Amino acid sequence: MQPGQVKALFFDVFGTVVDWRSSIILELETFGKQKGVEVNWAAFADDWRDLYQPSMDAVRRGDREWRPLDTLHRESLITLISRHNITRLTEEEIDHLNKAWHRLEPWPDCVEGLTRLRTNYILATLSNGNIALLVNMAKRAGLPWDAVLGAEPARAYKPLPQSYLRNAQFLGLEPAECMLVAAHNRDLAAARTLGFRTAFVCRPTEHGPGQNTDLRAESEWDIVTETMTGVAGALGC
Amino acid sequence: MQPGQVKALFFDVFGTVVDWRSSIILELETFGKQKGVEVNWAAFADDWRDLYQPSMDAVRRGDREWRPLDTLHRESLITLISRHNITRLTEEEIDHLNKAWHRLEPWPDCVEGLTRLRTNYILATLSNGNIALLVNMAKRAGLPWDAVLGAEPARAYKPLPQSYLRNAQFLGLEPAECMLVAAHNRDLAAARTLGFRTAFVCRPTEHGPGQNTDLRAESEWDIVTETMTGVAGALGC
Repeated sequence: MQPGQVKALFFDVFGTVVDWRSSIILELETFGKQKGVEVNWAAFADDWRDLYQPSMDAVRRGDREWRPLDTLHRESLITLISRHNITRLTEEEIDHLNKAWHRLEPWPDCVEGLTRLRTNYILATLSNGNIALLVNMAKRAGLPWDAVLGAEPARAYKPLPQSYLRNAQFLGLEPAECMLVAAHNRDLAAARTLGFRTAFVCRPTEHGPGQNTDLRAESEWDIVTETMTGVAGALGC
Repeated sequence: MQPGQVKALFFDVFGTVVDWRSSIILELETFGKQKGVEVNWAAFADDWRDLYQPSMDAVRRGDREWRPLDTLHRESLITLISRHNITRLTEEEIDHLNKAWHRLEPWPDCVEGLTRLRTNYILATLSNGNIALLVNMAKRAGLPWDAVLGAEPARAYKPLPQSYLRNAQFLGLEPAECMLVAAHNRDLAAARTLGFRTAFVCRPTEHGPGQNTDLRAESEWDIVTETMTGVAGALGC
């Protein structure tokens, strides 16, 4: 593609940059062994993620005041701890589990791909994750962001239009100067409607072996690839 | 000092990390030569900075809605262009001059000092500069921030308490887990009142040869030094 006037690349993070499911399952399994708690932790991880969109809906509608994703994750975690009849967890243990979302591992192509892209573009997160989560993740995993942005500074969860537009404004850019890189067709569609350029990175195992969504590009995105290094190649980096 | 529980270092930027005055004078002089405009550009730069605090005051008081520093800088610039009887500037030329604040040069000790500090601490800006200004500056100068924060995401200009507290919250930290690094006693005093740790970096030529403020530590800050590498040394980095 012709990168044209694109100056900044915005990245969805969960699923696009990091393999949240494997990371969360490993954290939960490790914790379960230490505590002697036997649970189907893969199912627990999927349940936790299933509560992700509903937990943001009340905030999106304005029925609940703005709160960061760490808070929503923790509310969902407490629901699941109760549902799975797990008892005797301390507040510190719950906090530790909740912050597993700060310790997600990137897909193996990401550090190289982002490092190459960073030479020519401003790289910023555009995630529903909160700033602390994204900063701690980046520090641990070596993700070379120029700016950690997203739902929290915009005070709007994706796919609300303000979540995209306010982040472009934070960088002083027009939407046409921004490209969203994401593994989710719905996210890209919302961004494109507002004028963003789009790159689809297919992540067919994000949701595990039974994934049945986002297995292919469902529209003619500007870039379609399977890796972050593929995005770099398409942009000549 | 004992760094204790400090996890993040927040940095004032104008004067502390970058030599705004020399950079702005050089930009103005270069522009003046190209345009054939003769003005005392050092005086112009000082006038521009003199309008800095007053321009934020109306926003701090709530008499004007929130607006980023780029907007306030541009309003002040237009005032000064008129005052100095400079005519026939295009909007593009005014934008270019205004964005001189995105192209400030760091003091020579900063890249090394920050790079050393980054191995042990989260490094974040806590500037009245807006995000685009700080991101463009960092990209150009190689300033290795983990997070570009400050007045804009907090929607409060320093030294309002919320400008410090909301930025600590963005990193998920208590004030006692944060240290402000600044060349200005007033900034440090505001942060310390809220529970931040403090590091004073004396910059005796920030305001040029006639500087008569912030020539010494006016209180017992946790660290007192003259360079960013001095901060690194004091924190064992």
